[in-house]
Amino acid sequence: MTATPPEPDAPCNPGILPGIRLYVEAPLAAGATVVPSAEQHHYLRNVMRMPAGAAVRLFNGRDGEWLAAVEVRGRKDTALAVTARTRGQTAEPDLWLCFAPVKKARIDFVAQKASELGVSALQPVMTRHTQVARVNLERLRANAVEAAEQCARLSVPAVFPPRTLESLIGGWPAARHILLLDETQTGIPIVDTLRRRSDARGRPWAVFVGPEGGYAPEELDLLRRLPNVTPVGLGGRLLRADTAAVAALACWQAVLGDWTAPTHR
Amino acid sequence: MTATPPEPDAPCNPGILPGIRLYVEAPLAAGATVVPSAEQHHYLRNVMRMPAGAAVRLFNGRDGEWLAAVEVRGRKDTALAVTARTRGQTAEPDLWLCFAPVKKARIDFVAQKASELGVSALQPVMTRHTQVARVNLERLRANAVEAAEQCARLSVPAVFPPRTLESLIGGWPAARHILLLDETQTGIPIVDTLRRRSDARGRPWAVFVGPEGGYAPEELDLLRRLPNVTPVGLGGRLLRADTAAVAALACWQAVLGDWTAPTHR
Repeated sequence: MTATPPEPDAPCNPGILPGIRLYVEAPLAAGATVVPSAEQHHYLRNVMRMPAGAAVRLFNGRDGEWLAAVEVRGRKDTALAVTARTRGQTAEPDLWLCFAPVKKARIDFVAQKASELGVSALQPVMTRHTQVARVNLERLRANAVEAAEQCARLSVPAVFPPRTLESLIGGWPAARHILLLDETQTGIPIVDTLRRRSDARGRPWAVFVGPEGGYAPEELDLLRRLPNVTPVGLGGRLLRADTAAVAALACWQAVLGDWTAPTHR
Repeated sequence: MTATPPEPDAPCNPGILPGIRLYVEAPLAAGATVVPSAEQHHYLRNVMRMPAGAAVRLFNGRDGEWLAAVEVRGRKDTALAVTARTRGQTAEPDLWLCFAPVKKARIDFVAQKASELGVSALQPVMTRHTQVARVNLERLRANAVEAAEQCARLSVPAVFPPRTLESLIGGWPAARHILLLDETQTGIPIVDTLRRRSDARGRPWAVFVGPEGGYAPEELDLLRRLPNVTPVGLGGRLLRADTAAVAALACWQAVLGDWTAPTHR
C-alpha cells in the first residue's frame, strides 16, 4: 500500500486506518472499478495530489469498506481500482433526527454533528416557530457525507425533504419511538428516562428537537399524543436548538445506541 | 415593566422571562446603578433601540438575576437602574473543560456550547498534536459570555490562560476528578461508567478532550496515572474534538450534573 497523505485533522486512532475515505454509490467488490465524481476527482488529484497507485478507502453503505488504488487515466480522468475489503458492513442504529431547520452555519453544524453521532436520517421539520423557509438539501447532504467520510462510519445518513410537523406526525409509523426534547418540562432527566426504555433498544427511534422559538403548545400536544413518545428535558439552562440536538443524540447513543457495545471499525 | 423587544432567537420557555440579559461585573442590589460597557451601551441603544425605562435583566455570577431599567442620560451615556431580583444565585456544577484549542469557528463553537452546557471554566491545553499555536482569550471569553447571557445561566465560565498538558497535570489538584475522553479505548461506555462514579457527584470535575490528532501515547499515560481519572470512550465513530467535547459534557450533566435535579430558572 502506497503511503497516502494524512487526512486533514484526522485523529490518530489505533482502530482507524489513516488516509482518505470516500463515499461512493457504486457496488464495491474485489476487482471492481469505481469512477469518482467530479468533486472527488478534483479532491484526489488537485487538492490531495494523490499519485497513481495511491490507496484510498471506499464505502457505499452496503458492502463494507474497501481499499482502492488511484488510477490516473488522464488529466481529467481518474478511476479507483477496488482491491481488498478492510471492514465488513455492520448494522447501525436506526435513529432519525427530526429537527426544525436553523440558519446556515448552524444547520451545517447539525448535519455534520448528527452524521458523526450516527443518525440514519435527517428530517427537516417545518414548525410554527421555524424561522427558515427553505432548506438546501444538497448542502445538508454534502455536510452529512463529508462528516461520514471523516468519522469512519460505513453509511451516510439519508436526507429527507422537509415536512410540516402536522404532515410528518399524521403519517408517523407507530413502531418508531420518539425521544421528544420538551423544553417546557425541564425536570425529566434524559439518561434515567432512556434507561427505563431499554425494552426499546434496537428499535427504530427518532429524536425530535424544536426550533429556536420552541414548539407551539398545540404542536407539543400533537407530539405527546403519539403512541411511543418519551419526553425529556435537558436541565435548566436554555440550549440552542443545535446544542440540544447534539446533546440528545449523545445521550441516546450512550444509553440505547452503539456507544454501549464493543466497537468494530 | 415596559415591554422589551424579544431577544433574537430566544425560545419561548415558560420558565424564562423574555428579553435581554446582560452579564455585568458590578454588584447587584435594589437601588444600585450599573454602567454598561461600551459594547453593551451600543447593543442596547443602537442595535436593540431600547427606550428609556425599558427593562433588561442583569447577572454577575454572585448576586442572582435582577431587573434593571434603562436610563438614557445622553447619546453616549446609558445607565441601568437595578430594581427587583428575579432569581436568587444558586450553586452550579464545578466542571472544567480542558480542551486542546482547535481552529477559529470550532473554538468559538466549543466556548459557546460549553457555556450553554454549564461548565465553570474553560482551560485551553497545548498538547503534542495541538495544531493551534495561539489562543484568543478575549474571543473565547466573549463567546462564553454571550452564550451565558442567552442560555439563562447565572454565571459565566472562567477562561484560563493556555497551559501545556505537562504543566497542567504537574500541578493538578488531586481532589478534582477527571473524565478522560480516551479514543484509544472505544469500549468503555460513558454513561455506565459515570453512573458508577455517583460517589463523586457534587465534587469538582474536569472533562479532558484531546486535539484532532489525539493525545500522544505518553500524554495518555500521564493522564491515566492521575489519581481520580475516569477514562471513557464515545463509541466506534471518530468524533471531531468539538463534537466529543459537547457529547461528553452532555453525558456528564445528564448523569452527575444538574440535568438530574428539578431546575430553577
